[in-house]
Amino acid sequence: MKKFINDPPDVLADALRGIQAAHPEQRVDPASRIIYRAEPTRSGKVAIVSGGGSGHEPLHGGFVGPGMLDAAAAGEVFTSPTPDQVLEATKTVDAGAGVLHIVKNYTGDVLNFEMAAELAAAEGVEVRAVVVNDDVAVQDSTFTAGRRGVGTTVILEKLVGAAAERGDDLEAVHALAERVNAQGRSMGVALTSCTVPAAGKPTFDLPEDEMEVGVGIHGEPGRHRVPLATAREIAPMLVDPIAHDLDVSGPAIVLLNGLGGTPLIELYLLYAEVAPLLEKAGVEVARLLVGNYITSLDMAGASLTVVKADDEMLDLWDAPVSTPGLRWGA
Amino acid sequence: MKKFINDPPDVLADALRGIQAAHPEQRVDPASRIIYRAEPTRSGKVAIVSGGGSGHEPLHGGFVGPGMLDAAAAGEVFTSPTPDQVLEATKTVDAGAGVLHIVKNYTGDVLNFEMAAELAAAEGVEVRAVVVNDDVAVQDSTFTAGRRGVGTTVILEKLVGAAAERGDDLEAVHALAERVNAQGRSMGVALTSCTVPAAGKPTFDLPEDEMEVGVGIHGEPGRHRVPLATAREIAPMLVDPIAHDLDVSGPAIVLLNGLGGTPLIELYLLYAEVAPLLEKAGVEVARLLVGNYITSLDMAGASLTVVKADDEMLDLWDAPVSTPGLRWGA
Repeated sequence: MKKFINDPPDVLADALRGIQAAHPEQRVDPASRIIYRAEPTRSGKVAIVSGGGSGHEPLHGGFVGPGMLDAAAAGEVFTSPTPDQVLEATKTVDAGAGVLHIVKNYTGDVLNFEMAAELAAAEGVEVRAVVVNDDVAVQDSTFTAGRRGVGTTVILEKLVGAAAERGDDLEAVHALAERVNAQGRSMGVALTSCTVPAAGKPTFDLPEDEMEVGVGIHGEPGRHRVPLATAREIAPMLVDPIAHDLDVSGPAIVLLNGLGGTPLIELYLLYAEVAPLLEKAGVEVARLLVGNYITSLDMAGASLTVVKADDEMLDLWDAPVSTPGLRWGA
Repeated sequence: MKKFINDPPDVLADALRGIQAAHPEQRVDPASRIIYRAEPTRSGKVAIVSGGGSGHEPLHGGFVGPGMLDAAAAGEVFTSPTPDQVLEATKTVDAGAGVLHIVKNYTGDVLNFEMAAELAAAEGVEVRAVVVNDDVAVQDSTFTAGRRGVGTTVILEKLVGAAAERGDDLEAVHALAERVNAQGRSMGVALTSCTVPAAGKPTFDLPEDEMEVGVGIHGEPGRHRVPLATAREIAPMLVDPIAHDLDVSGPAIVLLNGLGGTPLIELYLLYAEVAPLLEKAGVEVARLLVGNYITSLDMAGASLTVVKADDEMLDLWDAPVSTPGLRWGA
């Protein structure tokens, strides 16, 4: 295992130290393993909280900052954060207007966020939750009942973060979150496995001449293994299942995401093949990200996310954001 | 070779198609393989041109945009752009106030940029050049006489781009570029090789229990191979050679850079170990980037760059920039 780590059990704690050292505008609590804005939540602003297993950076901690998340709870690598962590994040950033939980649809995450929401309610903090389930690859998976939550999460965190910043109330922010999730679809492909530090070996075996179509962000199996193909052949494997699942015609926010071990030149090359297929499916790419936003440790691979977007969503997208992972207008 | 590509000889052309599709605010000329701003250079603004071999993305094309480069010439993977390409880039963006060439110190790059500058001069375009040579790892290397040019290039492109944008003349922009280069130092380490698509196999062999300290961005040999070490042991291998070469005490702009195959969680973990060593060396980290900015295809590894910075340089750093690879304030 070739990684910049010290001891495998210390990976999260050590990485959090680095995040704190790198980003003084964030606060990292090493005990509860939550990341939140150093600047307290503006009174009356809905607070946005997310979290999940680590290993997907910049998601979620890298999206904590003005215009996006107020706090994130960082679980161990590929492991749900505990209810206590989520509760701590929730209470830390609540400013009296309630808290939206953004949860990716993995069974552990859903249960632990639900429990945290109940505990928060008992302490007088109003919580709503959106469960992101945008992955069209499979119904049910290793850690999931129903569809997995993947790339739409990035776009959703940006949009609802902007809505909260402009002063929308909890009901409105929650409704927007549900709308974004309903209009978002993703599909991924892995060329290699990833290696969880605590395991010390690849999560799954993928022969040198095969790839996994529909892979999950923890290396969960996808739809099928197929022979290694060209970018031109891979592009429809990403676009078609999305377009088959939802009428994606019209304006959209698109993310072509790297899974951690794939360099940018390959993502652009893949986008060259994806773009004409999106056009053919009627997608008007109104806004686009190409890069590493929701990763799977060192996995070589990519995912495509399409979120249908109306004018309001595009305005929210364009609103200033200032986080380690996404920044513009500020 | 597991990559998102079609045919190895088409990698650059295909990637450039993707860049054009992704970034309508840029123009990509598929014939001359230059990337330039769609918006013509403001009359009287010094134009900033860089370029080099591809495979280091986002460098250089990803830094073309307001506040940074006016144009970049994209050579084949790990291959210098031709004099014709650089000449074309230079003439395309010249707006009568002259052009600064930013050249990384590799023999082919230096020769071809020099030839392009002479050809441009013959056509009445005034050109100055800065040759970045910040890599403290080795004197002379596989493709270089003298020190190689690496991470300081990213910071230099930002600072001189901002200086040109505020209206500095060619002499002033050139002087700033020389000053930034003189105050910048870098050091890198590779955990794995990279694979050049045309070669189809790793550039060098690096056993599972070894790493290359002082590696170049094309996989050139460094100072020595050592047994695979922890992040805590690797950090001084990056910081000490820099601090030994230059008194780095005082404010600085710092880049902890991933080489393409290393995920962000590992870079943060490494930064946790680097930060206290920088402090011990007297570095005040005034500005910081952690991420993939000058890569080596899919190489797992990292490099550290420290550029000593005065108040003027920090102001230039903070000025708005709007490029695919670096964006804020716009």
